[in-house]
Amino acid sequence: MLNVHLVPHTHDDVGWLKTVDQYFYGDRNDIQHAGVQYILDSVVDQLLKNPDRRFIYVETAFFYRWWKQQTDDMQNTVKQLVNEGRLEFVNGGWCMSDEATTHYSAVIDQMTMGLRFLNDTFGHCGRPRVAWHIDPFGHAREHASMFAQMGYDGFFFGRLDYQDRNRRMVAREQEMLWRASESLTPPMADLFTGILPNGYNPPEGFCWDQSCDDPPIRDDPDLEDYNVDDVVTRFLSIAHAQALVYKTNHIIMTMGSDFQYENANLWYKNLDKLIRYVNQKQSNGSEVNVLYSTPSCYLQELHRANLTWPLKGDDFFPYADSAHDFWTGYFTSRPALKRYERISNGYLQTCNQLEVLGGPISRKGPFGAGDSETLKKAMAVAQHHDAVSGTEKQHVANDYARRLANGWAHCQVLVSNTLSSLSGSSAPRVYCEHLNVSVCPLTETSKKFSVNVYNPLAHPVSWPVRLPVNGTAYSISDANGKAVDSQVTLHFSLYPSLSLYLSISLALPLHFSLYPFLSLLSISLYLSISLYPSLFLPLHLPFNFSIQPSISLYPSISPSLSTTPSCSLYPSIFISLSVFLSPYFFSSSLSLCASIVTLRDFLSSLLCVCFSRYNASDGNNSESIQMSGAYIFRPNTSTPFIISKTAKTETLQEVRQWFSPWVSQVVRLYTDSRALELEWTVGPVPIGDDLGKEVISRLDSSINSSGVFYTDSNGREVLQRRKDYRPTWNLRQSEPIAGNYYPINSRAYIKDDKDQLTVVTDRSQGGGSIQDGSLEIMLHRRLLYDDVRGVGEPLNETSDIYPEGLVVRGRLLLSLSPPATAADTHRPLAQEVVLQPLITFTDGELHPSTRLEFSGLQAVLPPAVHLLTVSQWDQDSVLLRLEHQYQASESKEHSQPVTVNLQVSDMLEQQQQAQESKEHCLSLRLVVNTMPLPKRGGDPSVWEVNLKPMEIRTFLLRVRQR
Amino acid sequence: MLNVHLVPHTHDDVGWLKTVDQYFYGDRNDIQHAGVQYILDSVVDQLLKNPDRRFIYVETAFFYRWWKQQTDDMQNTVKQLVNEGRLEFVNGGWCMSDEATTHYSAVIDQMTMGLRFLNDTFGHCGRPRVAWHIDPFGHAREHASMFAQMGYDGFFFGRLDYQDRNRRMVAREQEMLWRASESLTPPMADLFTGILPNGYNPPEGFCWDQSCDDPPIRDDPDLEDYNVDDVVTRFLSIAHAQALVYKTNHIIMTMGSDFQYENANLWYKNLDKLIRYVNQKQSNGSEVNVLYSTPSCYLQELHRANLTWPLKGDDFFPYADSAHDFWTGYFTSRPALKRYERISNGYLQTCNQLEVLGGPISRKGPFGAGDSETLKKAMAVAQHHDAVSGTEKQHVANDYARRLANGWAHCQVLVSNTLSSLSGSSAPRVYCEHLNVSVCPLTETSKKFSVNVYNPLAHPVSWPVRLPVNGTAYSISDANGKAVDSQVTLHFSLYPSLSLYLSISLALPLHFSLYPFLSLLSISLYLSISLYPSLFLPLHLPFNFSIQPSISLYPSISPSLSTTPSCSLYPSIFISLSVFLSPYFFSSSLSLCASIVTLRDFLSSLLCVCFSRYNASDGNNSESIQMSGAYIFRPNTSTPFIISKTAKTETLQEVRQWFSPWVSQVVRLYTDSRALELEWTVGPVPIGDDLGKEVISRLDSSINSSGVFYTDSNGREVLQRRKDYRPTWNLRQSEPIAGNYYPINSRAYIKDDKDQLTVVTDRSQGGGSIQDGSLEIMLHRRLLYDDVRGVGEPLNETSDIYPEGLVVRGRLLLSLSPPATAADTHRPLAQEVVLQPLITFTDGELHPSTRLEFSGLQAVLPPAVHLLTVSQWDQDSVLLRLEHQYQASESKEHSQPVTVNLQVSDMLEQQQQAQESKEHCLSLRLVVNTMPLPKRGGDPSVWEVNLKPMEIRTFLLRVRQR
Repeated sequence: MLNVHLVPHTHDDVGWLKTVDQYFYGDRNDIQHAGVQYILDSVVDQLLKNPDRRFIYVETAFFYRWWKQQTDDMQNTVKQLVNEGRLEFVNGGWCMSDEATTHYSAVIDQMTMGLRFLNDTFGHCGRPRVAWHIDPFGHAREHASMFAQMGYDGFFFGRLDYQDRNRRMVAREQEMLWRASESLTPPMADLFTGILPNGYNPPEGFCWDQSCDDPPIRDDPDLEDYNVDDVVTRFLSIAHAQALVYKTNHIIMTMGSDFQYENANLWYKNLDKLIRYVNQKQSNGSEVNVLYSTPSCYLQELHRANLTWPLKGDDFFPYADSAHDFWTGYFTSRPALKRYERISNGYLQTCNQLEVLGGPISRKGPFGAGDSETLKKAMAVAQHHDAVSGTEKQHVANDYARRLANGWAHCQVLVSNTLSSLSGSSAPRVYCEHLNVSVCPLTETSKKFSVNVYNPLAHPVSWPVRLPVNGTAYSISDANGKAVDSQVTLHFSLYPSLSLYLSISLALPLHFSLYPFLSLLSISLYLSISLYPSLFLPLHLPFNFSIQPSISLYPSISPSLSTTPSCSLYPSIFISLSVFLSPYFFSSSLSLCASIVTLRDFLSSLLCVCFSRYNASDGNNSESIQMSGAYIFRPNTSTPFIISKTAKTETLQEVRQWFSPWVSQVVRLYTDSRALELEWTVGPVPIGDDLGKEVISRLDSSINSSGVFYTDSNGREVLQRRKDYRPTWNLRQSEPIAGNYYPINSRAYIKDDKDQLTVVTDRSQGGGSIQDGSLEIMLHRRLLYDDVRGVGEPLNETSDIYPEGLVVRGRLLLSLSPPATAADTHRPLAQEVVLQPLITFTDGELHPSTRLEFSGLQAVLPPAVHLLTVSQWDQDSVLLRLEHQYQASESKEHSQPVTVNLQVSDMLEQQQQAQESKEHCLSLRLVVNTMPLPKRGGDPSVWEVNLKPMEIRTFLLRVRQR
Repeated sequence: MLNVHLVPHTHDDVGWLKTVDQYFYGDRNDIQHAGVQYILDSVVDQLLKNPDRRFIYVETAFFYRWWKQQTDDMQNTVKQLVNEGRLEFVNGGWCMSDEATTHYSAVIDQMTMGLRFLNDTFGHCGRPRVAWHIDPFGHAREHASMFAQMGYDGFFFGRLDYQDRNRRMVAREQEMLWRASESLTPPMADLFTGILPNGYNPPEGFCWDQSCDDPPIRDDPDLEDYNVDDVVTRFLSIAHAQALVYKTNHIIMTMGSDFQYENANLWYKNLDKLIRYVNQKQSNGSEVNVLYSTPSCYLQELHRANLTWPLKGDDFFPYADSAHDFWTGYFTSRPALKRYERISNGYLQTCNQLEVLGGPISRKGPFGAGDSETLKKAMAVAQHHDAVSGTEKQHVANDYARRLANGWAHCQVLVSNTLSSLSGSSAPRVYCEHLNVSVCPLTETSKKFSVNVYNPLAHPVSWPVRLPVNGTAYSISDANGKAVDSQVTLHFSLYPSLSLYLSISLALPLHFSLYPFLSLLSISLYLSISLYPSLFLPLHLPFNFSIQPSISLYPSISPSLSTTPSCSLYPSIFISLSVFLSPYFFSSSLSLCASIVTLRDFLSSLLCVCFSRYNASDGNNSESIQMSGAYIFRPNTSTPFIISKTAKTETLQEVRQWFSPWVSQVVRLYTDSRALELEWTVGPVPIGDDLGKEVISRLDSSINSSGVFYTDSNGREVLQRRKDYRPTWNLRQSEPIAGNYYPINSRAYIKDDKDQLTVVTDRSQGGGSIQDGSLEIMLHRRLLYDDVRGVGEPLNETSDIYPEGLVVRGRLLLSLSPPATAADTHRPLAQEVVLQPLITFTDGELHPSTRLEFSGLQAVLPPAVHLLTVSQWDQDSVLLRLEHQYQASESKEHSQPVTVNLQVSDMLEQQQQAQESKEHCLSLRLVVNTMPLPKRGGDPSVWEVNLKPMEIRTFLLRVRQR
């Protein structure tokens, strides 16, 4: 018997063409017909009509909303359906993450939130056993690794490279074992992975949703067009054909698609008939058996087959659906949203930590009611594969940003409450969210203010603080009253499009006539502060620590202008940064190159950084009409156009370069920094020539990279990439640029025996190594056509503030190291970018009783250990995740097992008393180990946590409030 | 309190853009999303969820299909909903008839069929109390009259002239009493009539169907865009505005539209909320009360208001939705389908009669299983307002025709069985359905055949039989062996486009060289037979009669060609037809005129018949872009273009005229006929000039008609029409032609004191009297644009047989009479056109034992009495309808009450014994009177039926098979 598992399902994007709330309610059906509230209403109704029927539901963000609105009766009915296996949750995260552009920490958070809701609501029967990423546009190995660590039994997806699929169909290798980590000990990151037969759609001609036009089963001989025989014949033919490309006598058919089952009766009525009529044929010798099923039921049958599956070690990037259709554009699409999502993640982690540190007062304190929940939910939906991916409509991108901003506002109240409680000062906290564009009304107007810096990392960091001010000289002291070095410098903006953020300093009495090339003057003054030594974050949570604002800065009120460019920056390079930036770095007329000498390792390399753009394919190519769009990257030539071979250059403590009216860059070196900072500003990308453009920054070096480069997966492990090559099939390369692009989630590097050039990015971007020694990173995209993958509008970002086109600013952090020690730099550097210090301000003089310093950590954690999560789980427990942040073998010093002892018994006597520690799997769905906490003076080895490279351990500490 | 009756409803076209079966199953959703099976599934589910919810259902053609597929449980559930008034049937006919182009007899049939199903299934509670014609494009007075006679309490519709609506809104006259007959004694044809507030759609912004995009009620404050206050405010504002244009404190809102409620949850979930939130405002002083309701509940409240409603005497034609948008095109659209529908009606009546006469053997006899049911259902769906109206898509028009053809085939078996039984001959019956284009393979090849003619009227008729043959001389005898006069004549076809039907006679050895203007020769020979005295149809049904084939024709086998045009036709004019057709009738070079002299009344009139065309508006008019289409007639000039001022003319026994390659006409006069027959052939209408064309035949006479003409309503009563005038409002005429067009269902006339020129048509057509003394009738339309009323394709009929465009042939029957006696001619003439004799053939020699004559009637019925229906109702009863076919005052001789005595006691002893007679209302929903049949020799006055002008009486005779 060939068993055909029919899996009724709906795929409900948590925002795409409509916002998540519009999708839930079915609002704006003029954009797309979709209303999730009705889907769930209808499916439950229809499941009740026939006990054979099955349904799976995936996106908890929607299910949670629906559940809240149901009566007790309905909730009990649904629980019954879940208990009987008629309604089954799969995947179960808050959303179905994007896999290319999401950071692992945010993915873990959103999955944890969704699965927690299901567990709290339905208990064991609500636990998804299958990961289900049917729509994401390529698949990250790190996702498979996380799913394995979360305890899923298997993973199904729909999209992969068309060549890969073809080969796998012929070889019957559409089912495999994915060994998703090179560091974790198998089978820790092993995951059965299956490729669905038709994306996530039903077989052709068998779509019976209201959104489909396939003929229904017409089984009344009295009416026209009785078609039962035809339907059965077609179905059997498809089933037999499908069985040829899979290994067992069980096959799966996904009976549903985007927002389907709003009127589930259409589907089920016809599926009931299909099953009846196809199985009736068995009495005539048919050997096909059709049944309602679920992915977990199907998976169980595959396991029962007891076969050996082929092993997969690499990932599924990039994804092409045909020869000229590489979905590598979305690696970069909406760079501003991608950045906002990433700093929001950092802010959420800080907010979580301060919620734990502040206790109940953080949520209800002197500044009102605050919470981390709002930002948690906003971040969770932002992980969706049409959110941070940049493949949603503009109004939906705006909605994600608005949600995040709302989350920030809620967290700011919480942070204010906690800081007030911990510092003993109820002075209002001021947040300057626009420091990246030099806007902070407080620092620009106040004559005396203090700065509080909170470092959410468990390691010290050195962090530059640049503040716009209106004075020319400030007196700054730290918490101990010690003077802090600082400089006030001038900052000009060349182009009017940037002036908005900087125009506040126009009131300054500056001698700007020195800079005659300026067309519009904008000035701001920076105050540089070295943060080292920085604040420590508490490790021994949830125990109470004393906390103090780390450094308070008291500006003087006697500004004195420093207008002369200072060369004092350059000596500091030799001391602290190991990178030599020669004065002629930007002087070449042909290329923008410099030789880099690192003093630490005595490496030297020629490095050129130039901005280029691809013109997007616009469909005029007769060979194929694929255009660049939100998803797809397709340049119309394979040689990028250089923006400018020269730059207007200005050197202050930083080097400022203007390449064109819409591309500029600032190069900075900081004392003690291990990296060169390239702050790029791109936009508004001009489109007056009717050509879409995709702007890259290309780093050309003398490294002999031999066609190989490296990119990370979701900010964790690094995969090797080889030009015009795929590890698992014989690639026919059809797009020399787009087909060699990969997601650069947090870093990329090229190397040879001697040198490794690593770039750490501040957001997800796409990039490739098209020439040896070269790394190119796509910064911004502005396109005039839709790429016909559904979003239905060109990726042409404008807004009220940017009517001429979005201007985006970001940073690339470059480091040059010997390959053997490169990870020692890029691992902590990437975490510092993700978890930036929180900077808050208070105006005026601090009250003398204010506690000025505070550290939650007794000591710095070992360098290999990253404090991944510290978050209040519920009133009685705190969630703690510790991570070994090095891969196996990448660092001689750090790629070793490490042990941390959590016990600091003194702490137990503070606000909360830990009573029990439960170790969980990554998503907290499964308890690995339960351990009562020893009484004071008990065995301290109980608290020892051992971490191997890339391992994450998850603890829930049950506490009692004192 | 202002009470707002929300009426959830769906409007399910019984075919339009999709066929009726496609609509039922939800097939071809690529054309239009609509699946009635799911609508009924879903509505029943949703009604069960809340006992307050209501729904009305209208189209029994769909409900019947759905009902058949339900389980007993579901049927019981639905019965319960009906009994509780939660599901209410309104209208309840098989379909919602078109009102302009349907013949009253077919409308009565289809209504009877639908209401019967509801009555049989649900009994009293399933009886619709309200007629509901929300979509038809204008409203016929005869429909209102029929609804009144069917026992409806009231009538609601949606479409009326925009000027009429505006006036009625201001005057609060949207509710009225329609006195729908000038003949029937009030209140026999009085009907409360209400105009719905927004067509049949919900108020703007309140459409919550899956097909709509209005915002759902978002009442969860946790989600975005909470909008309850906005929704309630908008609703109250609409309700108050609506109350201003109606008279009572009850208003109705139609919450639904085309094929809505496929997912009823969307509607009801939001309506539940609307009712809750609007009524909540009452506690804040709101005086608006919203409730789920039905039209009958709303009507009851209007009756309770005890107001006097304004009286309406005319009708609602023509319907314009704005100044240049007159829905007068559909009066003529698809003339071939309109004709086929009408002859199918005649054939069905014949089939019904022969089913009664044949008894059970008719349904299962020597020729297999036959039935009238198939044609009954096909006719019933053909009455739909997008069927015979011609406003459906081409493929749907084809489906209606196919259904009718299928019905014919089933009836032909039944007819064969009955004729075999009654004649005693089992010789196969041959049916020649293409006699109108001179195709009948049997008569064209056989050397000896017999013709059987069955007259379904209760009066003798004279009927010409023309048969294509291949001999030149035939010997013909009637049933008594008496020779019958006949002629064999030549019939040429001028143009290749018509040759298909006539090419069979090419084998004839004819001297066609006499006609050098012929480009392609096609010949057929006609055999003319006078049918007078004709067969009588049985009146005393269901009693058995002897039946005999009326006339058998035995052609000789020695053909001799008669090529010379004969003038013998003309003397017969003076004898029988009262119309003088002079030889120079067609000789004028300027116009195509003749003087007509009627010998009976000594009238004379100059009559000109010319073919013209309007070029259709194609949207190039800058004033307005309305184009002519399936619904709309809008010529681009008000002066028609004459096709030709001369005609090539040929005179045989008939006068043949060719005006252009695509317009020709044959003029015929028959012995004893009271009318001149104009057989027109139009097509393929040329479109090489990119102009759509609407072809008319214009009859210009010397009658002084003073801006007035007359048209009938659904083939029954006649209404006066006045140019540029409407009886109930002050018309601002904006379309001089289209705005003066009315439906000519079966006849139109103009008159002055002395003369009345009446045209009886063979199908529904549009027409007007644009000039005094002139009547124009639109014959055919071929258009290149859609008129944007939904059908979505231009009315440009082609087919495999007519790839160059449809060719249509039809007849106009002209009579000239004194006004006082004109009805004596046109009343029976119109019935003869509707109920044509059935002609069947048998090949070869008849068996000597064959009964050659048969009459079901003992005697001719009184001339005023029309035998409207004779049909087997069920095994035990026969349906009989008798009609007085004259209006009050239109005929001195016939517009009088008349009594018919049904009792012919001899008949009772035959096959079936009548036991009881129940008199019903027109649709058989209500029993008027029950009467046991007297024993033989009882009181014969029990059988007396009195009929007043225009009265129809309906009897169900219960019989026992012997």
